[in-house]
Amino acid sequence: MGEVALPHVVILGGGFGGLWATRALASAPVRITLVDRTNHHLFQPLLYQVATAGLSAPDIAAPLRHILHRQRNVTVLLGEASGIDLAAKRVTLDHGSLDYDYLVVATGATHAYFGHDDWAAHAPGLKTLDDALAIRRRILTAFEAAEREDDSAARAAWMNFVVIGGGPTGVELAGTLAEIARHTLPREFRRYDPRSAQIHLLEAGPRVLAAMPESLSQSARTQLERLGVNVRTGQAVTAIDADGVTLGTTRIESRSVLWAAGVAASPLGRQLGVALDRAGRVEVQPDLSIEGHPEVCVIGDLAHVVQSNGQPVPGIAPAAKQMGTHVATVIRARLRGQPAKPFRYRDYGNLATIGRMAAVVDLGRLKFSGLLAWWFWLAAHIFFLIGFRNRIVVMLDWAWSYWSYQRNARIIVGCEQPASKSSDDSRIGSE
Amino acid sequence: MGEVALPHVVILGGGFGGLWATRALASAPVRITLVDRTNHHLFQPLLYQVATAGLSAPDIAAPLRHILHRQRNVTVLLGEASGIDLAAKRVTLDHGSLDYDYLVVATGATHAYFGHDDWAAHAPGLKTLDDALAIRRRILTAFEAAEREDDSAARAAWMNFVVIGGGPTGVELAGTLAEIARHTLPREFRRYDPRSAQIHLLEAGPRVLAAMPESLSQSARTQLERLGVNVRTGQAVTAIDADGVTLGTTRIESRSVLWAAGVAASPLGRQLGVALDRAGRVEVQPDLSIEGHPEVCVIGDLAHVVQSNGQPVPGIAPAAKQMGTHVATVIRARLRGQPAKPFRYRDYGNLATIGRMAAVVDLGRLKFSGLLAWWFWLAAHIFFLIGFRNRIVVMLDWAWSYWSYQRNARIIVGCEQPASKSSDDSRIGSE
Repeated sequence: MGEVALPHVVILGGGFGGLWATRALASAPVRITLVDRTNHHLFQPLLYQVATAGLSAPDIAAPLRHILHRQRNVTVLLGEASGIDLAAKRVTLDHGSLDYDYLVVATGATHAYFGHDDWAAHAPGLKTLDDALAIRRRILTAFEAAEREDDSAARAAWMNFVVIGGGPTGVELAGTLAEIARHTLPREFRRYDPRSAQIHLLEAGPRVLAAMPESLSQSARTQLERLGVNVRTGQAVTAIDADGVTLGTTRIESRSVLWAAGVAASPLGRQLGVALDRAGRVEVQPDLSIEGHPEVCVIGDLAHVVQSNGQPVPGIAPAAKQMGTHVATVIRARLRGQPAKPFRYRDYGNLATIGRMAAVVDLGRLKFSGLLAWWFWLAAHIFFLIGFRNRIVVMLDWAWSYWSYQRNARIIVGCEQPASKSSDDSRIGSE
Repeated sequence: MGEVALPHVVILGGGFGGLWATRALASAPVRITLVDRTNHHLFQPLLYQVATAGLSAPDIAAPLRHILHRQRNVTVLLGEASGIDLAAKRVTLDHGSLDYDYLVVATGATHAYFGHDDWAAHAPGLKTLDDALAIRRRILTAFEAAEREDDSAARAAWMNFVVIGGGPTGVELAGTLAEIARHTLPREFRRYDPRSAQIHLLEAGPRVLAAMPESLSQSARTQLERLGVNVRTGQAVTAIDADGVTLGTTRIESRSVLWAAGVAASPLGRQLGVALDRAGRVEVQPDLSIEGHPEVCVIGDLAHVVQSNGQPVPGIAPAAKQMGTHVATVIRARLRGQPAKPFRYRDYGNLATIGRMAAVVDLGRLKFSGLLAWWFWLAAHIFFLIGFRNRIVVMLDWAWSYWSYQRNARIIVGCEQPASKSSDDSRIGSE
């Protein structure tokens, strides 16, 4: 085959960074192999909607090989990279290995427990679709378990929801939980009132949405409290167990703890032999390649990139997409033997949703919050959601939810058994 | 509370039988507790669509407590019944127990391996949403694994799909697999042609769809073969292992075996102390109660009911709904101290889908197959699908699939790791 002689670009990770890099190389004289450990690209900004039963998993994901089926220079492989041999220019996968001429590492980040790995079992995090389905199962099962309980203290423990971490994911989860308890479920239970649920949002730092200007953080807090969320800042969690959360001398009994506090970069970064920052991100050169290896680039949440103003590029989808596009220009330049330009991040603004009709938007000079911000957020997210069909279904789901207060994916699936610690042989409903 | 004195009706199972019984008791002077081990009613006739990535799990399921939220005399509990004490009139659940005045057992059937429980790991069956997601994962992973293989024999084993059992579920699965391999996937793989997939449908009896008239069985077989399915009847499977299926002296190498051959009634039937048929179904009285216990009725797939013509009532959704409605009239009669009428099954016909534009319909005197039957099947299933919103989404999904040949739920989720037996350290794409 004529194409055998073409340089081989291996891209690890099919998130925003890897997928945008792949697309930007569509017309380049290269063979591309895109490797991901899932079969889909995930629209991560809406993952909390799957976790809170608003959307189905397939609504926010599309098979990578379907997205790319017209791009004939790409082979998509399901697999997980376990090692990188820079000298041999070879990546080791769970099945086999790949030799590369150019390597793009875009394996992102996962949630981290700051050395408390035992907390993972009690406070699941949210990074993948499987995570989202596990959190959905946990939330819905808590309301079901409360209906089974005769003992009011045991019921209260099920109805105390604790979200740890006041970043965008934590704010979204807490705001949506409040909406579910107050609007979606009330008429559906007979033995208790779901409006009695307490939603706690715990943030160790001084304010929620710390990446936002202080005025919007304050607005977000006010909007959260109006939705019924108890916001507690400035106190770090010191322990998590099966029965609740401890913050120093304060204790919150809870069976439903969600983790949205920490991220750690993919462990693959450690294999590149260059400096990492505290979160394990790879410190890249201005053009996103690594020192001494112009054929290897790192992008997205795994890359630590400092802007000309000294600030790091944020770990958000638009930044990953821009890095993906840039890395394609770097590879094209290398192929021509020309020098590559440095990466420049363009900040188009920042937005976060909080709950029903509540959001904050920061477009630099223009900042706004509340209902208008929520409509802005909605339009932006539907616009960027990949795939024509998904956009229609998501719009339909949201229109329906808005009108009915219902959530369309309140289906418990998955292998984990509902955590069972309730009263053992009590007789229910036999009074 | 004034309602405490009302008789307590416990209904086990929220399928077609249990849900229809619950609804039919809406205005009766009773308290009802509906117990199901999932939180949802499942529209089982479309379960194969979730397994074959055409629909999302929430598209064909609705939370039981949402369906029933306006019916104030019902409490819905998530739980699994493990024991029935007829003398004490008490049901034991995984969490606690329930005393009843009237009991309706509607816990249905599950798939059975005819004493070969070791086959379950190699040939998953299809009864629940979790089963459907596991089968979806297995099917999609097989196509992914084939793309990873360099060895053509190993690839062929992934591309041999075997469906065991020629009833409606087996026919639907085989027909849809053929459609996926021939129409959905071909342009998306680079290293092999998915059209090379072989779909085998194995039926031990003499014909597929044995519950249908012989002419429609023949038509179904012809339509299957036209879709590219290899149909093999009259030979029983004698062994299943991780590498394939054996039928006497014939061997089919396959990594993707699906089980649609046998069902066994819920084990709860054994606790009722009355006669069971060979499949473990409870032989009920003409009014659907059990001998000696007029306060206990058994309905749906768990009940063995003989019609006046000597034929058993079939294990299909319309029969379960009719039994559910009937059992409500039985309980109302008992409450008034009147004798209950015997159950009479009304046969409105039988239909089965085979694949794209292929189905068979038997309405007694009127029998037809092919495209017209497929449209009839489509209309009937959308009409009966519970919930206004689900109907719209399913219609939209199907219209899109019909037009584009695409399937909207091709997302691998779930805990099981992809079965990995592929070549160990081969180098992929590095030639």
